[in-house]
Order: sequence, then structure tokens, then C-alpha cells
Amino acid sequence: MDQVIGARLCPDGGARTIREQFVQVRNETERLAASLSAEDQCVQSMPDASPAKWHRAHTTWFFEQFALRAHAPRYREFDPAFGFLFNSYYETVGPRHPRPSRGLLTRPSAAAVSQYRAHVDAAMQTLLAGPVETGLVDLVVLGLHHEQQHQELLLTDMLHAFAQSPLLPSVLSGWTEPAYAQGPTRMMQRPGGIVAIGNDGEGFAFDNEQPRHHEYLRSYAIADRLVRNADWLAFMEDGGYRTPTLWMSDGFAAAQNGGWTSPGYWHARDDGWWQMGPGGLAPLDKDAPVRHVSWYEADAFARWAGARLPTEAEWEDAATDPEMREMTGHVWQWTASPYVAYPGFAAAAGAIGEYNGKFMVNQMTLRGGSLATPAGHVRPSYRNFFYPDKRWQFTGLRLARWD
Amino acid sequence: MDQVIGARLCPDGGARTIREQFVQVRNETERLAASLSAEDQCVQSMPDASPAKWHRAHTTWFFEQFALRAHAPRYREFDPAFGFLFNSYYETVGPRHPRPSRGLLTRPSAAAVSQYRAHVDAAMQTLLAGPVETGLVDLVVLGLHHEQQHQELLLTDMLHAFAQSPLLPSVLSGWTEPAYAQGPTRMMQRPGGIVAIGNDGEGFAFDNEQPRHHEYLRSYAIADRLVRNADWLAFMEDGGYRTPTLWMSDGFAAAQNGGWTSPGYWHARDDGWWQMGPGGLAPLDKDAPVRHVSWYEADAFARWAGARLPTEAEWEDAATDPEMREMTGHVWQWTASPYVAYPGFAAAAGAIGEYNGKFMVNQMTLRGGSLATPAGHVRPSYRNFFYPDKRWQFTGLRLARWD
Amino acid sequence: MDQVIGARLCPDGGARTIREQFVQVRNETERLAASLSAEDQCVQSMPDASPAKWHRAHTTWFFEQFALRAHAPRYREFDPAFGFLFNSYYETVGPRHPRPSRGLLTRPSAAAVSQYRAHVDAAMQTLLAGPVETGLVDLVVLGLHHEQQHQELLLTDMLHAFAQSPLLPSVLSGWTEPAYAQGPTRMMQRPGGIVAIGNDGEGFAFDNEQPRHHEYLRSYAIADRLVRNADWLAFMEDGGYRTPTLWMSDGFAAAQNGGWTSPGYWHARDDGWWQMGPGGLAPLDKDAPVRHVSWYEADAFARWAGARLPTEAEWEDAATDPEMREMTGHVWQWTASPYVAYPGFAAAAGAIGEYNGKFMVNQMTLRGGSLATPAGHVRPSYRNFFYPDKRWQFTGLRLARWD
Amino acid sequence: MDQVIGARLCPDGGARTIREQFVQVRNETERLAASLSAEDQCVQSMPDASPAKWHRAHTTWFFEQFALRAHAPRYREFDPAFGFLFNSYYETVGPRHPRPSRGLLTRPSAAAVSQYRAHVDAAMQTLLAGPVETGLVDLVVLGLHHEQQHQELLLTDMLHAFAQSPLLPSVLSGWTEPAYAQGPTRMMQRPGGIVAIGNDGEGFAFDNEQPRHHEYLRSYAIADRLVRNADWLAFMEDGGYRTPTLWMSDGFAAAQNGGWTSPGYWHARDDGWWQMGPGGLAPLDKDAPVRHVSWYEADAFARWAGARLPTEAEWEDAATDPEMREMTGHVWQWTASPYVAYPGFAAAAGAIGEYNGKFMVNQMTLRGGSLATPAGHVRPSYRNFFYPDKRWQFTGLRLARWD
Repeated sequence: MDQVIGARLCPDGGARTIREQFVQVRNETERLAASLSAEDQCVQSMPDASPAKWHRAHTTWFFEQFALRAHAPRYREFDPAFGFLFNSYYETVGPRHPRPSRGLLTRPSAAAVSQYRAHVDAAMQTLLAGPVETGLVDLVVLGLHHEQQHQELLLTDMLHAFAQSPLLPSVLSGWTEPAYAQGPTRMMQRPGGIVAIGNDGEGFAFDNEQPRHHEYLRSYAIADRLVRNADWLAFMEDGGYRTPTLWMSDGFAAAQNGGWTSPGYWHARDDGWWQMGPGGLAPLDKDAPVRHVSWYEADAFARWAGARLPTEAEWEDAATDPEMREMTGHVWQWTASPYVAYPGFAAAAGAIGEYNGKFMVNQMTLRGGSLATPAGHVRPSYRNFFYPDKRWQFTGLRLARWD
Repeated sequence: MDQVIGARLCPDGGARTIREQFVQVRNETERLAASLSAEDQCVQSMPDASPAKWHRAHTTWFFEQFALRAHAPRYREFDPAFGFLFNSYYETVGPRHPRPSRGLLTRPSAAAVSQYRAHVDAAMQTLLAGPVETGLVDLVVLGLHHEQQHQELLLTDMLHAFAQSPLLPSVLSGWTEPAYAQGPTRMMQRPGGIVAIGNDGEGFAFDNEQPRHHEYLRSYAIADRLVRNADWLAFMEDGGYRTPTLWMSDGFAAAQNGGWTSPGYWHARDDGWWQMGPGGLAPLDKDAPVRHVSWYEADAFARWAGARLPTEAEWEDAATDPEMREMTGHVWQWTASPYVAYPGFAAAAGAIGEYNGKFMVNQMTLRGGSLATPAGHVRPSYRNFFYPDKRWQFTGLRLARWD
Repeated sequence: MDQVIGARLCPDGGARTIREQFVQVRNETERLAASLSAEDQCVQSMPDASPAKWHRAHTTWFFEQFALRAHAPRYREFDPAFGFLFNSYYETVGPRHPRPSRGLLTRPSAAAVSQYRAHVDAAMQTLLAGPVETGLVDLVVLGLHHEQQHQELLLTDMLHAFAQSPLLPSVLSGWTEPAYAQGPTRMMQRPGGIVAIGNDGEGFAFDNEQPRHHEYLRSYAIADRLVRNADWLAFMEDGGYRTPTLWMSDGFAAAQNGGWTSPGYWHARDDGWWQMGPGGLAPLDKDAPVRHVSWYEADAFARWAGARLPTEAEWEDAATDPEMREMTGHVWQWTASPYVAYPGFAAAAGAIGEYNGKFMVNQMTLRGGSLATPAGHVRPSYRNFFYPDKRWQFTGLRLARWD
Repeated sequence: MDQVIGARLCPDGGARTIREQFVQVRNETERLAASLSAEDQCVQSMPDASPAKWHRAHTTWFFEQFALRAHAPRYREFDPAFGFLFNSYYETVGPRHPRPSRGLLTRPSAAAVSQYRAHVDAAMQTLLAGPVETGLVDLVVLGLHHEQQHQELLLTDMLHAFAQSPLLPSVLSGWTEPAYAQGPTRMMQRPGGIVAIGNDGEGFAFDNEQPRHHEYLRSYAIADRLVRNADWLAFMEDGGYRTPTLWMSDGFAAAQNGGWTSPGYWHARDDGWWQMGPGGLAPLDKDAPVRHVSWYEADAFARWAGARLPTEAEWEDAATDPEMREMTGHVWQWTASPYVAYPGFAAAAGAIGEYNGKFMVNQMTLRGGSLATPAGHVRPSYRNFFYPDKRWQFTGLRLARWD
């Protein structure tokens, strides 16, 4: 299907496999950018977003910086300026181009970035052709997961830019929306107690999913599917956006300042609500899971519904229940949990250690994976995180309650 | 001693007792403001702070609004405009004067606020003279704890204003610094496991300390006393404020934007470091616990020291160990825990329910109580909270480690 | 009458006279502040405004700095800190307290400022008791004119603060509005040609009124009285505030950003329009000259009326016609002229040279003098100046046309 | 020569001539953009600037909107969305895309804009093929002058974007700097008196150059050439940027906030000063006229030099003296004159009337024309205008004095 984003990444260790996976993930990035013009790829519509061209180059720089420089002694750097231009935030590696100015980089061109990608890909394929030591495999797998994260950002950032355009173009041609669960929403009872949370060490995981550890949960109930657009319309019609007692104090201020009266990318037209999506502007499907809501909105909605957001431990515990639906493939699901380190967490040494740890304040954790998340990229232990006022990602919610 | 702030509040239930406590707490507020001129009491030095006069009036309004209106049918309102002027943030109660404009309230005068206090105090003493129903006792006790919180804020807000003045006046005449622990700092080993956290329902507690519940703790080590100014000077001399890899990403940005190179209220002079305190500018005591550091700084310091901040559950667990020192009376101690609801938390009904719940995002929890906290106000389960960039409170830290 | 502000200042040169005038002007400042509490005098309601206490102290510092230090060798400085606190903007004199923080100066108290005034006044009266050299007379006269400017600012700044207060107190007790001209407005034809503009050197004038010089004027028509509130209501009802083609581009943006839909201090109530003035809130007098309009609004109104603002040369030329009415005593009248130096202008040497010259960009010139301008302070050649978006002064307009 | 920008525009009236001129000016725009990639043309590096693609489309829209719609009844609109996208600021014409978001317009593509230009050019050439009525000629001439203004902006805006790029690319290949005057600078004495200022109605002129009128000038002296980089270096070495008494109050604040320590686009390197120009980064030529200085800087420099900026009337009067040098072709020359209407000025009717009049506040007038001004575009009466803090244009100064 055209709309399948990404390719399942199963790093089972052999050199042959990692090389094939490398090619597959790298090609997927190019497929996602294929319908974007050079101009589309250059634009940065807000400081939170990056240009598509930058995503394509930065993910390439990651392999050049961390794999080729360290492991391919005869590798010839593509362009010495690119380290400065395409480093994202690794203080350990050196100075870098300021993030809010990424949209000023009309040069190197999209075509030059394609050449950069080809240059690095060729060197990587040579490097991965023979026997590959474990440390390098781990690095490449990390690089591929990193690239898959940027694949999702490439889509959401481009959607943000196109949603500002009066022409409302589509980001991906041939896009179709994912099928969602049918029938009523049920609240599933869960017993709580001591549960094990975090990655068990099988397969790839980011450092922030570890160490696996115990948490004590009170018994709780959690919805077996996501909140829908129809639910959100009821919240809107009941004055949800105008009722401060439903909101966190910071949240109501954000809603007022942002002029929020509906989820992001909604357009009120004479013939009803429409929403801007990867395929362009389309009539709002009331049965579909709501998306482009901030944590503040999700939290207020839950309070209005007499419920609450689940904690991330509850979400991960519930994920072991096969009756749960829409756990992935639709929206990242806001949880009640701020993004902090797990007990015993230690960041990796060196630049890689900057990947997750230094963002562990002021952000809220999301679980699940969205329609824009590459297949195979997520796990039940996967922790995504955004500031509570952000709405440009595919973000929604499921409800929970104390039973 | 002059510098003892507050009076131990032991609401043991009888009508007689509550009336006496009422008088005691109310008088203490006036004592704290006694050395302030009418002009001093009017100033608001930043949106986070409130004028001393406002604190005096707002705490009075609390009793008028929640106790006298509901329980004293013959009570005559002092001034109908005061509800609008001195409501802090209770959306349920009605509109209110905008917080950043509190410093514009030159009228009512400090003298009029004194009259307001006397008027309400007289009515309250009448109300509390006879038998008092439990609901009212609970409300008055809440009001007294509320007033004690504002007693601390009155001091810290006034200190902030005076620290901007070229004259650096003292906030409290006769102030002396509290005595601190002597001897080396020891790391105390704690076994972890399932621990009970939160208030057990004996005596007064805020809703955010409840319900008491279980958490599972990994074993850990925690310092038996606070980080000192000498420790902080070593961090500074080692380039702590200039080393981004020690900091949260948001924290380093805050330090750069704020031009932070030392804790708050430090002054570099030819003869060494001085610090502005309640008694005015004084030479820095290197052996005293460091104060006026933000969470961002505390977190960076801990990383520099090869340690971390304790979680609030660890802090509360450790508080059961009599060997712990400086747990209260010096600084509020930043923890690693964002301020969120405990499992099963439900805000109180009505306006009182806005007291704590709507602030449960974006803030970090502090434990312990400071030199400005009224005696008897805090408990081991007490949860204070501030944004991670704030430094105008008496805030410091103790270290923890995974063992 | 109580509401007469200021005292006619006729510095005719003799030592006796200058001493008497000194006493008269200095007393007038104290009279204007007499109904203000210590708290009222401390507040700064926006960075453009200064506290009343600051005005009282700054005008005193002017005499201490420029007259007593230079001419009274045995003068004992009142407080060495006051130079830093009460210098306004004289770079030549040394560093100074930042303007937006003037409201933080709860100390020195209003009472201490009274003592400061008494101390300086006594020294000045001694200095002026005997024969006085011309240079000193000139300096004192400048200081008295300076103080009269601050008398007006004291009123307008206090009005701004009180207009933010929910209590809307009156600034001056016993205030009555000035009587205005009756009958229709006539457009007076003026022939233009070469006219002499600027001060002729008789009596006191600021450096910016000089040198007197020639300008060539085209013939023009100018209204013999001011635009009234009734005129302004017609502009509002005709959608004036919503019609961008009537406005300067910067002006319409300012109106939108400021949410302007009427002149400053207007309140729409069920019983019609009211306006906040020195005497408190009062029903709007539709026949009175409009006030508290910015240059942007005045310019848009004039365009709407098929007219324009007069240039300052036209205004000064027209002022020689005895048939002109309301030339002073009501509002400062916006002109079409940006505030720039006259041909041949040279700023005075030393600190006094900073008085006017360094503000000669980005501001528009006003002529006439307002109801808050001390009697005798203004002349036809007098040039006032404010940024085009300011509305807290008593500012209005008269119309002009090309004939 | 490659670096000649623009083509002399001599609208002498015949239909044949206007058609040829149309082709010539339109082609020149394309030549200026020829070395820019599609990405280069899309970027907007600050709200003051516009993308090159936008300049190319907006100038085309001008002809479509004002010439073809009104005069070519069978003209088929290229795309109905373009009116919204490429209207700059004409309120009369309808709503428009917000200026700061022009850089988000990745679509229509640069290629589509080329098609738009070809479509409109073909229709215009058909329209201008036969006899052309005078009103249309006037409109086309206005459109061509409008396009020449945007040719200069295309260069300066692109230079601003490229100056932010770490790669510092050149805007125009084959660029060479203009030759400047040799020998010492002389102060030319001018007698003043009544002079005629403004356009005399011969040939094209903008409405703001009219009506021609009389001004009375005092005698003055004016430099016969521009201030050089060597002069500016002396100002810098003398602490000019750190001496507040040399500056307007607003100017010094702007210099401090902007961190200005040299003119724009200067780079301090180990081997001396370099400057970014249309040809890329090059060593600073100390004998060349200084450029990229704001009015604030020019004003401060003149004061430091014991001189002042000329008024625009002086400049225009001096322009009649054949001994004056470097009056055009190097930098726009800041004058002492705020940009205001001439006596008797009336804006044109309709949308064209928004061209100049609504910007007549807060800006300073510049005279002369720069190295980026198309040949034949300027006249001695030509009035350019920018805010006093702007430095991204080719702006410099010549000195004047009262004699």
C-alpha cells in the first residue's frame, strides 16, 4: 500500500541483514520526499520544525559522523561544511548551525543533498559488505531508528508548512487514512500491583526505555480504543474551550493565547468541518480518532469526560492485554506522565548520550506510535515526548479512570 | 528568637484552640510586615511576585469569602470591591484583578488593608467564639495554612524587590541565619522496596499529599545533609555554568538567557562573594547550604557531582530515618519529580478544589521547608512546587545516587 | 481656582525675583502631589511613566546637580545615592537607575523625598538670597521650566496609573474642567509666504525652539478651534477605527495591536460614554475637545474629515492671529511635523545639551499646551514631542487644509 | 558590463516605445534572478525582506491587476489564487497573504512563476502592440518603475539571506564593484535662500516627489563625495559605537540591542576586515564609500565628525551643482529629513494612492540611488525611505555643515 510508511526494522545481527535494512530505511526516506519540490524541502515553517532537506541531510550526517569517521579509515568526507550545517544538537561534536535558521539554508540544494546521501550510502554499503563488528551494528541500528524518527518528523513538519499555505497541497500523493476500530468503547479493568516496565533488552531500544524496573500500580480502568472526533465535537459544543475549570492553569492560558477553539488543522466551512492531513484538506471523519490535540487539550477533555489520561506505566501494562485496540498506527497517545528518567537510568557515553537524557524536563510522554510512524519502529516500551502545548504531531488520547 | 517565623499550627479540633490559632497566625503575618513601609508593601517586582499588602489582603479575603460568607449570616462585607481585587486565581468565585497588575493597586492603602484585617479578624473571632462545626474548623485550618504559605511568599517576594533596589534594605530587622549541621556529608544507604507515600490522614494536609499510596523504590543512597556554598563555588570554578553537557537542554538555554553565573542574589565584590538575604547584604558563608538556585542549576550541579536529585518518594522515605539532617528549616529541596497527582487523587469540590490541582504540569516538586517557612507548617509529606527556572525562593538541594 | 496648575513663570532677571519664582514653582509641585498617598507616589504603571515620588526627587536632583554642586561650594549633599537614583537620562553625568525600574524604588520613602526637597530648597534659597550671576539665573530658570514639565508628567503619569485601578480614584481633588470655546468652527485662511519661526530670544526658551529662522509656507486654512468629542464619535460611528485606507500603515497596525476603538480612558457604559480624567470618571462632554488620542488616530481622523494636521510652522504662524481659539489650556495639539532640529541648531554644551537634541528622531511635534500645563510655561514657539502611538498625555488636534 | 543593473527607462510616450521598454525591464528582472536556484528564490530571511520568487510574481501581478484587468477585456487570469498570494499591501484591492509568511510559499514554484510572467508578458505585449491610450501608458510606466524598485529589493533581500548562510554565496555572478571618486573630499558652500524642490512634471515621477514647491534654505556646506570605509574605521577606533553622547537616544539603544560594532555584513578576520557583497565575501576596500549603515549610525558618525546629515532639500539643491560627485550609483544617502508629504501633496485615487502616502511616518528619507538601483530609475527629486534602524540596503552618507 502506498501509505505504508517505513519498513519493519528487525536488526537480528548479521552483516547481510544490517546492510539490507540500511538500504531499505534509506530508500524509504527518499520515497517520502519524492513528491516534494526543491522549494518544499527548503522551508521551515516554525522553529520546532525542520526543512525536509535538512532531515534528509542530518540523518546522513549521523552515519558519516558516527559510523564512517570512526569505522571507515579511508572514507573521504563529502563536504567539510556539512558537519556544522547538519549537526542537530550534539554539543559534544562541536558547534552547529542555529536551529531556527535551518530554513535559510537554500544551499546546499536538494540535489546536492541527494548526492550527499548517495555518497554516504555507497560508503556505508562498502563498510557493511563484509563482516561487521557488533559495535558498528549497534551504531547502524541506532542510526536507522534515528532516521525513522526523522521520517515521521519530515511528514509532520511538511504538513505544518503546507497547512500554512493558502493552496493546502498534499504532502504524500496516494495517501489513504488508516482503518480504525469499530463498535463501542469499553473501559477495561486492570488489577494493578507490581508491574515490570521498560524494555527487557530483547531487540533494539533507546536508552530512555531502560532499565526495566518495577512500579506499583493501583487498580485502574482504561479505554480499549481512542477518543474520536465526534467525542471532541461534543466537548467543543459543551463549551470545553471556554471553561477554565476544566483546564490546567497553564493550559487555559495556552488555549487563550493560541486562540484554540478546535484541534489543529481543522477548518470550519459552510458544509461542516474539514481537516488538513497528509493527503490535503478533507472532510472530517467523525468516527476517526481525534488528532492534533495538545496535552493541555487532551487533559481538559479527559476532565470534562469524568476521566483522566493514563500514566505511561498503565499504558504499558495495558498493552499486554490483547483486547486493547488502536494501540498504534493512529496517533501518539498523550499520557499523564512527565518525561523523566527511569530508576537507574544512565545516559550512554559520548555524543550518543545526548540523544534522550537532556530533554527529560518540561515534556510529557506519549505512547503508541502514529499513522506516520514507520512500521516496526515502535514497541510497547517506546517513549515519545513533546511539550504539552504542541499540536503539530499526530497526537490524540485514550481515557483512563480510577476504578 | 526574632527570626522564628510563624507559630506551630496544631489544629487539634476544639473551638477554643482554633480561635487561638487563628489569632496567632494572623498576628504573625502582621509581625512579618511590621518593618515594611506602606510603599514597600505596594511594590510588585515581577509577575511571579505579589505585593506584601496584597498578601495581607488576599489571605483576609480567603476567610471572608470561604468562612464568613458561608457561615456568618450577619457578617457585613468590608468592601464589595475587595473580592475582585484580592481573589488570586479562583475561577469558580468570579473575575479577578490580573496578577501582573497587582503592583498598580496603590489603593486600598496599607492602612485600609490593616482595617480590613481587623474587621475580618473581629468577625472571625466572634464566629469561632462558640461551638464550631467540623466543616468550619477544617476551612479555618485550611485558611491558616494558606496564610502561612503567604507568610513565606511575603518574605521571598519582598526580598526579590529589595534585591533590585540599589539600597539593598533588609526585609526583617533583627534577622539571624539558622544554624546548620556540622561535619562531613554522608551518603545514607536505603533499601527501597514497596513504601507508603503521602499523608496518612492524621492532622492537616493538602489534597495534593493524598491519597497515601504505595510506590516501589529501587535501593538508593541519599545525602544526610544539604549541598553547601563551598560545593557550589567548586562547581562554578570548574566551569559548571559554561558546560552544556551538564545541563538539561532547556536548562542551559535558561542559564544563557538569564545570564546566570552564580546562584541568585550573589554579589561579587573585591573582598569576595556576598549574598542578599532577609537581613540585607552579608558576606557569603561558605559552609551554609546553598540557596536561590533553580531546578535547572540543581540538576546540573548534581550531574557534575556524579550524583542526581532524589525523587520525592525517596525523600519522603528517607525522612523516616532519624539520622537525616537539615530536612527542614534551611531550603526547599528540589527533587527529580515533576509535580503530578498521586494515584487516586481527586481535587476537592468547589473553589477549594482549585487550590493545587490545576498547577500539576510543568513544575517540579520540592520538599522540606525553608528558613522562611512558618514553624509547624510543613510535614514530611508536604509537596511544594515551582517552575524549574525559578530562583527567588529559598531553594537548594541534597544529592542522591543509585547505589 | 483649585484646578489652576502651575504659576506663571516670568524670569525677568533680578535675584529677588528668581528666588520668589523658585519658591512658587517648587511649592506648586508639592501642591499637586498633596492628595497622593505614599503608595500612590511610588507606582510606575508603564515604562513611559515615572512615579510621582520620582518626579519630585528628580526635579530636586536637577538643582542639586547643576546649581548647588557648581555654585554652592559649602553645600552638603543630601544623600550620595540620590544621584544614581534620580538622574533621568544624562549620560554625561554618570550611570543611573534603569528607567523601567523606577517603580521598584520603595525607598527612599515619599517622606524622605520631602526632606530632600526641603534640604535642597533651603540651600537654593540661601544661594539665591544675594546677588546672583546671570549664568546661575539661567540655570535656575531652566530648572524651574524643567520642574514645570515634570508637574505635567506627574499628573499624566498618575492619571495613567489610576486609570488602571478598578477604583478609578481622582488625581486632584476639587478638579474642574476648563471652559472651552462656543459656536461653530471656522477655517481661517492664511496667506503663507516667508515666515519667521522659532523663539526670538526674548525671555526663556528651550534650545530646540532656536534659532529663529525663515520658512516658506504655502497658503493654507486652519481651524480656529479644536476637534470635539462629538466629531470623534462621528468618526467612530463611521467605522474610522476599522478602515485601513484612512490610516498610516504603522498607525493601523498600532490600532489593531492596541485594540483601540475609542480615545484613551473612554469607558462604554449602559448610560453612554464616560471618560477618566484628573477628577475621576465622569460622563463624556461631547462638546469638549477630544483628548488622549495618539498621532496615528489624529492623522486618520483628519483624513476622514477631508483635512490634515497643520505643520508646526503653520501652527506657529497662525498663532499670531488673535482670532484663533483654544490655542492653549486644553490639549497638546498634534502637528504633521516630525520633531527635528531647526536650521542652525546646536545643542548646549555639557549635560544640559542632552535635554532635547538626542530625542530628535521618531517623534512628532505638538504645540499649544494642555489643561495640565502650568500657567506661563508655554509660548507659541514651544515644541513638545511624543512618539506617534502615545495617548496618555492630554493630546488632541485641530484641522488644517490646503486652500 | 555585467554589473549594470537595469536598463534606462525613458517613457517618451509612443506605443512602440512603451512596449519595448516593457520587454527590456521585464527581461532585466529575469536576468537578475538567473543565477538563483528555485530554493534561493523561496527564502525569506526576515519580515522586512521578500523571497526573490515573490518579487518576480508580485511585479507581474501588478500588471495583471492594474493593466490587464482594466484594459484587456479578453484577458484570461493565469490563476485566481495569485491575487491573494502576490498583493503586497493594497488594502483597496482586497485581502492578502501576510507579509511575514511569504517565505512559506513553496508553491507556486519558481517555474510556475516563470510561466506566470510569460503569460502576463504575452498579454501585455498584445495589449501594447497597437495604439495605446495615455492612461494605460502611464500605468505601464508606473508598473515598470515599480518593477525596477523590486529589482533592487530582489538583490538586497537575497544578499541579506545569503549573508546569513555559512556558505556566503554570491548573489550575482560576474559582479564588479563600481568605480568611485578619487582625491580629497571638499565641502561645497551653497548660498541657500528660496529654492524649488520636487519634480517639475517632466517625465515620470512618483506622487511623493510632488508638488514642486518652494523651501527656504539657510546657507550651508555639503561634501562633494561620500564618507569612506576608512573614515568609518576611524570612528570605530575612536569608540564611536560605545559613546552614547554621539547618538540619538533611540539610536544608541538600537546599537546596543543589535550588538552593532561595525557596519552591516562586515566580518573581522585574522587578515583584516571583509565585507559580504553581491559578489560574495571580499576584503574591505577602505577607499570605497561605506555602506550598510543605518540612519542611527550615519547620524552618530556625522556628529562625531563635527558635521551633520544634509536635509533632503539641501541634497536636491546641491544636486544642481555639477561639481558634486558620487550623487548616485554607490549608496542611498541618508538625509536629516523624516519622510513626510510635500506641501499640497495629494495621494492618487484608488489603489495606486496607497503606493507612497501611507508610509509617511517613522521613516527617514534617502536620496541618490545605489549600485543596485537600475540605471535610469532615479532622479534628483527621487525620495527613498526606510526606518532609521535598517541596514540591509546599500545605505551610506555624505556630510553637511552649517557654514
